Amino acid sequence: MTEASDQMKDLSVSEPAEKKEKDKKDKKEPKEPKQKQKPVQKPKPQQKKKEGAALIGIDVSKSVDLAEWYQQVITKGQMISYYDVAGCYILEPASYAIWEAIKAWFDSQIKVRGKVRNAYFPIFISADNLEREKEHVEGFAAEVAWVTKGGKSDLEKPVAVRPTSETAMYPYFAKKIQSHRDLPLKLNQWNNVVRWEFKHPMPFIRSREFLWQEGHTAHLTKKEAAAEVLQILDWYSDVYQELLAVPVVKGTKTENEKFPGADYTTTIEGFIPATGRGIQAATSHCLGQHFSKMFNIIVEDPTTKEGSETKHIHVWQNSWGLTTRSIGVMILTHGDDRGLIIPPRVAEIQVVIIPVGITAKTTPEAREQLYSEVTWIAEVLRSVDIRVETDFREAYSPGWKFNDWELKGIPLRIEFGPKDSEKHVVTTSRRDRDNKDEARGETAISDLKEAIPALLESIQSDMFKKADAAYREHRVTLTDWKDFVPTLNGKNVVLVPHCEGGKCEDEIKEMSARKDDGDNTAVDTKAPAMGAKSLCIPFEQPEGITPGETKCVNPNCKDFAKSWVLFGRSY
Amino acid sequence: MTEASDQMKDLSVSEPAEKKEKDKKDKKEPKEPKQKQKPVQKPKPQQKKKEGAALIGIDVSKSVDLAEWYQQVITKGQMISYYDVAGCYILEPASYAIWEAIKAWFDSQIKVRGKVRNAYFPIFISADNLEREKEHVEGFAAEVAWVTKGGKSDLEKPVAVRPTSETAMYPYFAKKIQSHRDLPLKLNQWNNVVRWEFKHPMPFIRSREFLWQEGHTAHLTKKEAAAEVLQILDWYSDVYQELLAVPVVKGTKTENEKFPGADYTTTIEGFIPATGRGIQAATSHCLGQHFSKMFNIIVEDPTTKEGSETKHIHVWQNSWGLTTRSIGVMILTHGDDRGLIIPPRVAEIQVVIIPVGITAKTTPEAREQLYSEVTWIAEVLRSVDIRVETDFREAYSPGWKFNDWELKGIPLRIEFGPKDSEKHVVTTSRRDRDNKDEARGETAISDLKEAIPALLESIQSDMFKKADAAYREHRVTLTDWKDFVPTLNGKNVVLVPHCEGGKCEDEIKEMSARKDDGDNTAVDTKAPAMGAKSLCIPFEQPEGITPGETKCVNPNCKDFAKSWVLFGRSY
Repeated sequence: MTEASDQMKDLSVSEPAEKKEKDKKDKKEPKEPKQKQKPVQKPKPQQKKKEGAALIGIDVSKSVDLAEWYQQVITKGQMISYYDVAGCYILEPASYAIWEAIKAWFDSQIKVRGKVRNAYFPIFISADNLEREKEHVEGFAAEVAWVTKGGKSDLEKPVAVRPTSETAMYPYFAKKIQSHRDLPLKLNQWNNVVRWEFKHPMPFIRSREFLWQEGHTAHLTKKEAAAEVLQILDWYSDVYQELLAVPVVKGTKTENEKFPGADYTTTIEGFIPATGRGIQAATSHCLGQHFSKMFNIIVEDPTTKEGSETKHIHVWQNSWGLTTRSIGVMILTHGDDRGLIIPPRVAEIQVVIIPVGITAKTTPEAREQLYSEVTWIAEVLRSVDIRVETDFREAYSPGWKFNDWELKGIPLRIEFGPKDSEKHVVTTSRRDRDNKDEARGETAISDLKEAIPALLESIQSDMFKKADAAYREHRVTLTDWKDFVPTLNGKNVVLVPHCEGGKCEDEIKEMSARKDDGDNTAVDTKAPAMGAKSLCIPFEQPEGITPGETKCVNPNCKDFAKSWVLFGRSY
Repeated sequence: MTEASDQMKDLSVSEPAEKKEKDKKDKKEPKEPKQKQKPVQKPKPQQKKKEGAALIGIDVSKSVDLAEWYQQVITKGQMISYYDVAGCYILEPASYAIWEAIKAWFDSQIKVRGKVRNAYFPIFISADNLEREKEHVEGFAAEVAWVTKGGKSDLEKPVAVRPTSETAMYPYFAKKIQSHRDLPLKLNQWNNVVRWEFKHPMPFIRSREFLWQEGHTAHLTKKEAAAEVLQILDWYSDVYQELLAVPVVKGTKTENEKFPGADYTTTIEGFIPATGRGIQAATSHCLGQHFSKMFNIIVEDPTTKEGSETKHIHVWQNSWGLTTRSIGVMILTHGDDRGLIIPPRVAEIQVVIIPVGITAKTTPEAREQLYSEVTWIAEVLRSVDIRVETDFREAYSPGWKFNDWELKGIPLRIEFGPKDSEKHVVTTSRRDRDNKDEARGETAISDLKEAIPALLESIQSDMFKKADAAYREHRVTLTDWKDFVPTLNGKNVVLVPHCEGGKCEDEIKEMSARKDDGDNTAVDTKAPAMGAKSLCIPFEQPEGITPGETKCVNPNCKDFAKSWVLFGRSY
């Protein structure tokens, strides 16, 4: 279910940048890029080595080699540490804190406003249950991890490690839902799931184990289920846009791309400007009565009239999921050549304060005085709920520290030295601005409690605006097929009139793929590229489609367009 | 590590009450009690069947058949639902909410006061890493679940499902800790772990998958590590005593019972009055340098003098864990023949308000009026952060509802009818009091905001006092061996002078066991009983042991007593 199941569909497509790392001796096991073998480059005390600041940073440009940049930024930025089981990664504290921020916000929405309750279902699913619904199991069979041994004994019946929990949860639904009075039943769990994929892994974006929430609800009516699907999608959109500052497009999946067994799938679709590829961000499915029929989840129709035969209703079900992939999308969207840029609302540390202006002539007393002022500023900011860190490390120069915290993406730096102290100000530096002059500012000490939260909010909204502008610029509306592939190649996704036909979609995918030319060393967009698939039918439809008149964009298709559909190469 | 590893040590001991359910055809797979096959008894609308209220409740007394009582109270009280993989259970929303309350409190302590950061390490551990430390792997080898297949392919290298994360985490520690400046490193994760046990499972208390937190920290000095061990133990004690209203005894494990590889293990030990057995509640270990030596986690000694040879220090490590077992201990401690009793501080619903006094003569207007007053009372209570539920279900009588919410353990019931409305009061009923008159009270509407929170706090502290008194009463100090077994048989744990010798402990265990008399149908304490093991050396030591003079309680032991040691049969 949810986006991760769609991740799987992409797996036949190789990342050009990853291809060059591919170990041809072992096709079964995904290999981490070789760079992981290098020990993480650690800041060295200044006095030991006069290393340039650049050495601790990213040594490749995001625009030149995105794959290498990504690997460096997640490891040097301390988001991810590699691990000795392929396709699995360690979520370090700084990235886990982002997940906790997402969790806290979303959990509160679904509990307080959605009346959803959290629960926990076992990680193991019996083969009997997993295989109960053929269509479902077929979607996952190739990637299910099986536990076959306990200690040294073979298990009589192997158990599956959950790839998703429909088959773990719906027998419980059938047991608990005995009457329409038991509806709606709304459960959610925050857990880990495993999909033993054999293709190229990518930290956050595609891994064998990932964290997510999976919501599963049952309703008496289709109308009620449908309303919830959209409510959840709104909250997913808020997680991306309001917390992660990542723009998304809301829409419905085409028949080709919907969750198998669902009535329909709604989705939010993101975009990675650096590659021009779309990325599924989160999905909210209306499952209709498909699963309730298979799992026999029925209630008596409350509208049955006395004396007449009792009618039964199969409940209407939804499922919806949001994963740690979201963190990867955030990193790919905002990061730059200096490292990560974390939006303030989800940053574990929002502000770092660095004492500056200490020289060989500074007396110990003056230094102590400055440090205590820095500590006081931190306390002032904490009193208005800002997450602050102070950096008093003696072994490092201010410049080294600036680079170090920029690499980690801390949204705002405050510098404070004797001159600032005299002027009763702090010097600020925004991480999101490239231009040094635009990044820097000055805030009066007396204004800290109002000005710094406001500045953080500006950073948050400016980050979104910048990313949103990039997405809008690269979401190109076109109607003529001859523009389709060139526009894709220009790192865009395209909005085109389409018939919504499945075969036509397949044809477009085929026609827009660029075949392997045998040169696997290419890392730019001249490399072989996957075909474009439909990302969604956006809820927001432009004008311009006249039923029975506007043609489908595919020149080989005889049908008229039903709607504007977003197509793109994608993750 | 932590208590769960000690759970395993108990597994050779059969629960008498569970024995009768044992399926002798299949010794490998633990079987759930047969009762699980019965569909959960659901409240039936009153008009359909004139069932007595008792039918929805527990139909066995806690004092007569604890195992059957426990099974009924966790399923009918909607804490646990059985599942089709043996030894795995569904944590229903009401129990998961308790876990969330524990998590919120403990997480805040370790983050804010302990400066611990959360992270997430993969669920899979390579065989290479798992087997790196022989002593460690030997402790877990028999219960490790192995994934050997992905889809239809056999994995080249099977991977272990984590039984605990030392071997997943410490290679990362070795990588991240390069200098004393990187210390202390304090990480924690909230996750699921799996121990594929082949013995009798018991929901919450012993299951194949359970939820816990595992903290892993590294320090420069032994002193710093030792201080943290005790700080964590204090917080564990607070979780039990302040949140779950469950008394515990703090102490140190004997050499026999400590975590293998640890310098020492500190523990909090609980007590189940109904069986007279001790239960390990949570443990905080000082691992010393044992693991850092195996995983090569070293730093340069910061006290090395310039010019002299650099000395290296192996870091000092701790690990500490608290599991969902805590919920089971809480249920076993407080529950009664009417069902669960949840302490207010962790209850998902603290107060339920039930409209009463509606008769056939009540006009629809009067009923609406009453309902709106009930809704208003709920809002008043919510405004002071009380978690309130209102029960307007039409199909059930007030009496039925009383029983239903008592079964679920809601700490306080408010009844509100036309007479209460006239008097401007609400009628209260405390779940923790057996006696109806003692349970009931009246609160003026005008006092709600102060009186109800205060009443909930009284319930919380009275629940603790009652449980604490029971534990104190059954913690019997004795010095004469002839009293040892009879005192155990009287459902007590015993505090005895002991030499702290391992062999002597084994002998006591042997001497205090009651052998199987072949009658497996017995369910009370006359059944075969395990021997007593040492639970802990309590921090709080009574007077009375004179070194070189006081004898060890074991008559066959020639040594003098070193301390008062708590012994007991245990879970």
